Amino acid sequence: MPLFACSPPSPPPPPNRSLSVRSKKDGQSDRGSTKSGPAKHRFTMASLRGMQQPDLSKKLYKLIKTESHCISAYEAAGRERASIASQLSDWGEATNDDTISEISDKLGVLLAEIAEQEDLFCQSLEDSRSVLKQIRNTESSVQPSRDQKAKIADEIAKLKYKEPTSTKIITLEQELVRAEAQSLVAEAQLTNITRQKFKEAYDIHFAGTIERAEKQIMLAKQARRLLNLVDDTPIVPGDTHPTFDQYEAARQVLNDAEEQLRDWRPNNEPINSNAGSLGAGAMPSTSGASGASVTGSGGSIAFAGQEYSATRAYTTEQEGQQQTIEGAHPAYRKDSPERSVRDESSVA
Amino acid sequence: MPLFACSPPSPPPPPNRSLSVRSKKDGQSDRGSTKSGPAKHRFTMASLRGMQQPDLSKKLYKLIKTESHCISAYEAAGRERASIASQLSDWGEATNDDTISEISDKLGVLLAEIAEQEDLFCQSLEDSRSVLKQIRNTESSVQPSRDQKAKIADEIAKLKYKEPTSTKIITLEQELVRAEAQSLVAEAQLTNITRQKFKEAYDIHFAGTIERAEKQIMLAKQARRLLNLVDDTPIVPGDTHPTFDQYEAARQVLNDAEEQLRDWRPNNEPINSNAGSLGAGAMPSTSGASGASVTGSGGSIAFAGQEYSATRAYTTEQEGQQQTIEGAHPAYRKDSPERSVRDESSVA
Repeated sequence: MPLFACSPPSPPPPPNRSLSVRSKKDGQSDRGSTKSGPAKHRFTMASLRGMQQPDLSKKLYKLIKTESHCISAYEAAGRERASIASQLSDWGEATNDDTISEISDKLGVLLAEIAEQEDLFCQSLEDSRSVLKQIRNTESSVQPSRDQKAKIADEIAKLKYKEPTSTKIITLEQELVRAEAQSLVAEAQLTNITRQKFKEAYDIHFAGTIERAEKQIMLAKQARRLLNLVDDTPIVPGDTHPTFDQYEAARQVLNDAEEQLRDWRPNNEPINSNAGSLGAGAMPSTSGASGASVTGSGGSIAFAGQEYSATRAYTTEQEGQQQTIEGAHPAYRKDSPERSVRDESSVA
Repeated sequence: MPLFACSPPSPPPPPNRSLSVRSKKDGQSDRGSTKSGPAKHRFTMASLRGMQQPDLSKKLYKLIKTESHCISAYEAAGRERASIASQLSDWGEATNDDTISEISDKLGVLLAEIAEQEDLFCQSLEDSRSVLKQIRNTESSVQPSRDQKAKIADEIAKLKYKEPTSTKIITLEQELVRAEAQSLVAEAQLTNITRQKFKEAYDIHFAGTIERAEKQIMLAKQARRLLNLVDDTPIVPGDTHPTFDQYEAARQVLNDAEEQLRDWRPNNEPINSNAGSLGAGAMPSTSGASGASVTGSGGSIAFAGQEYSATRAYTTEQEGQQQTIEGAHPAYRKDSPERSVRDESSVA
């Protein structure tokens, strides 16, 4: 009897399961296209702290943890690259070859900028990660309301079997209706936050990926211009390469690279969001919605097609308690015109 | 008395030293634009093995070592990203939200491909690194010939001071001329290899950087298309999101991404090289050069403007030994028309 209003009415199976990275539960091997071969054995948990997370947020908790490892790895790569940049310049100086000395030094500058871009990328990943945390936090705060509902339903079932005439059943059934009302709100909050923050997190993630890539392309192309200033015509013993006379050209490459970086602007297709109307308490803000709303201590809440207030809720609970046990909560399970009305208003 | 023919005739100071990553010897702080703050203390050597390298190749040895750490970091980042991809898909499935389930799964596929690109990038870095090793190996093989020359010159100087009449001086002076001939060849080999392989290594490095970037941009842009299939309009409690009906669109995004990846071709300005004429023994191949050449056991060698053979070399040594001590080796120090002739022939 899942009350979670968003659970899909048995969705059609995705058209092609080979286009999925979902872990196969039957131990089938993963996507054949990755060349990683047999996966190394790794502990599934990096820390036992994950075990204290409620079931609902465990998967996302782990993902956020892995994302943190990933960011650390990129940070390390950026540090190493910055270090390579200055080592390259030092090596070039030590060759006593004016061409190699000059070009390696300028190349070092570009490599250091490329390393800097890895760092900025880490910042984007970190921003994306902290948005995912908002989903995770909502998930863990929704867990108790699910648990509470299940616990009360369980008690009622036990009691009905052992003492079918107990008056405690009626009290418990009232409690269950209240728990279900709370749970409906929690689940709506969860789905609202999940969809909005999911889009937001990966918007940031991929915008960061594109920014790093576009900037590194500019830098790498300028670096290739620098390389072309090195004359690698072989010499015979006793001969020398002509004196390097491309200082200006090399300098110009850096100037051009700087200018390009300064002029760079993001140019992505926007991610569209309708979540702008998501108000306090992770509920739609009520302007233009046909459903009535109450301002309670938890913020303004609109229920689908229902006038809903604390008083009315309790009344409804008592009227509907019998049905509640058998089926959905009468206050919220009615099909309502709410969605279509709101959709129209958001189009207008 | 440096015989190294390529040492620059006091090159003009580069126009702007702030555009450099070269490590400051006077302890000045590095580029102000990096936000790294005070650098963490790290051991300068990851292994003592580096200390066994000859001086000449020490810097490059370290750089190659650091490059290896950098590659490991990228590999780790790629592994974590691949793991995140499948965790994201699993989380999406567990939400019981058909939209999130489908989109997170497809997004996971794109994330896994992005991770795969990090892996390919590591391969490019590795290829670039192995080209740098060829410079390092040449550097370490040139060191003994420098040492040998210095040692003989030293002995002669000592002997001249202590026993100016010793006949051993003449033998040593003959040895010195031979050592200098060897050294001239070694230094020419070094500069030829250094310039050619420097260009080659960073050609590969930056081509790899561009390839990763271009492919990740394509994948990230497709991923953003996927995100736009998520309807994040907030719902009120008891309401549900409409059933997800964008399976075909989501599938199409993956197909498009696959097609773009398949159609990707490198489109870089080529790095020009004149090193094609670099023959065996790291010497210019002799076709078209005016200098004569000999085929010795070490391969074919042309000296600048000189007929040079084993027999003739030793004759020259004896004739020129007096000068040799005071100045450059007579066989190779003549200004020769060799370069200009070769330049013309390479233009033609």
